Amino acid sequence: MNNKPTIHTSLSPALLHLYDLSNSIVVIIDVFRATSTIASALHNGARSVIPVDSVPRAIEISKNIGGIAAGERDGIIAEGLQHGNSPLEYSRAFIGNKILVLTTTNGTRLLQMALNNNADSIISGSFPNLSAVCDHLVAEKKNVVLGCAGWKDRFNLEDTLFAGAVIQRIKKHFTIHCDSSLMAETIYAKHKNELIEFAPNLTHYHRLVERFGLIEDIKFCLTEDVANVLPVYIDGKLVAK
Amino acid sequence: MNNKPTIHTSLSPALLHLYDLSNSIVVIIDVFRATSTIASALHNGARSVIPVDSVPRAIEISKNIGGIAAGERDGIIAEGLQHGNSPLEYSRAFIGNKILVLTTTNGTRLLQMALNNNADSIISGSFPNLSAVCDHLVAEKKNVVLGCAGWKDRFNLEDTLFAGAVIQRIKKHFTIHCDSSLMAETIYAKHKNELIEFAPNLTHYHRLVERFGLIEDIKFCLTEDVANVLPVYIDGKLVAK
Repeated sequence: MNNKPTIHTSLSPALLHLYDLSNSIVVIIDVFRATSTIASALHNGARSVIPVDSVPRAIEISKNIGGIAAGERDGIIAEGLQHGNSPLEYSRAFIGNKILVLTTTNGTRLLQMALNNNADSIISGSFPNLSAVCDHLVAEKKNVVLGCAGWKDRFNLEDTLFAGAVIQRIKKHFTIHCDSSLMAETIYAKHKNELIEFAPNLTHYHRLVERFGLIEDIKFCLTEDVANVLPVYIDGKLVAK
Repeated sequence: MNNKPTIHTSLSPALLHLYDLSNSIVVIIDVFRATSTIASALHNGARSVIPVDSVPRAIEISKNIGGIAAGERDGIIAEGLQHGNSPLEYSRAFIGNKILVLTTTNGTRLLQMALNNNADSIISGSFPNLSAVCDHLVAEKKNVVLGCAGWKDRFNLEDTLFAGAVIQRIKKHFTIHCDSSLMAETIYAKHKNELIEFAPNLTHYHRLVERFGLIEDIKFCLTEDVANVLPVYIDGKLVAK
């Protein structure tokens, strides 16, 4: 009898309900750029990151708790805010010991869905904190659901690549009977040595780089372990474990 | 200005609504085994295939029109029926000039969703009729949505592999800005010369072969152009064009 825990990969928030989350660690994956920015802020000493789904709510919460409200709409810092979604904005000098109230669309929605589906626990993952995520999943010995945030429910390759990176690193500790996990690992294996060179093929790259010139963001978001912290969701906040 | 039509790939019925079907040819893909069986029956001279979603409905319709009702539940010929979902059952001697009333779950549901979303036209695709599908799509010069039936809304690799096969053959005639299409093509390119050897890695393989011994079905369903006909959905029936 094989008693290893399982890994499943949900390729879109619209598919998350197909998986049993109640006995699983759910990894929220939003590579461009929410979960990379969360890793960056926590790695640089933020006390917590509060993910919210709207700009007014970010402003309200940040006023109440003295936090920094941040967020973008269509690639530009949102009206009423001073800070955006770039992981490079959150240096230690700026964010150290502060609370970041971050508005994201795809990532926050997925996180809320994981909560509604009674996830056993929720962490966030991105290439900048790949090792911390993998070490945690191996140590916990629980079932895992890798939840790709996608783009407005559409599949995207960058989140899938990250899922594949996790699977390749930790698969020997798990049982995997899941076509999306096998696909993710295959895609990652093909591109892992040229992630940044491959990026121009991603639909999301065009939104970020061609329209907004965010090539340095892209590079950070595709670099492993440059913000190697484990963000754990507890009581409405992501905190470094 | 690039005026080529587009290709998008919907990896699950739960994602089909994300795509604009009203200006698109929708290709229903259910490789194991519904769309392969549809190709087989029509290639062997069936007058039409009527896809239905339940066994009682298959029995009722077949009685009314003098058709052959067929279908399985959990891999066994369904109670009240004499014929199953295997493409190998539908020889010319048996199905020639007859009407097949086929119950399928994933494929019929996806087809109904395409109808509900006002698809411009609907065809069905599988490896046995790959060339007929590709020739039609190139000739029509319309937008294309490759609709993978999946398994109970989950992603599966075999339908994705077929989408990738179509894309690789016809992409020069289309504009493709779609991560799932790029992924599908990549996966197909990796496995195209060993589809049958790769099959044991698919979750669906275990259901079909390990439980029901349907290895010959699998081989047929993964072989290109052995039933090279174009099934077009018109007035509730799939007919060979």
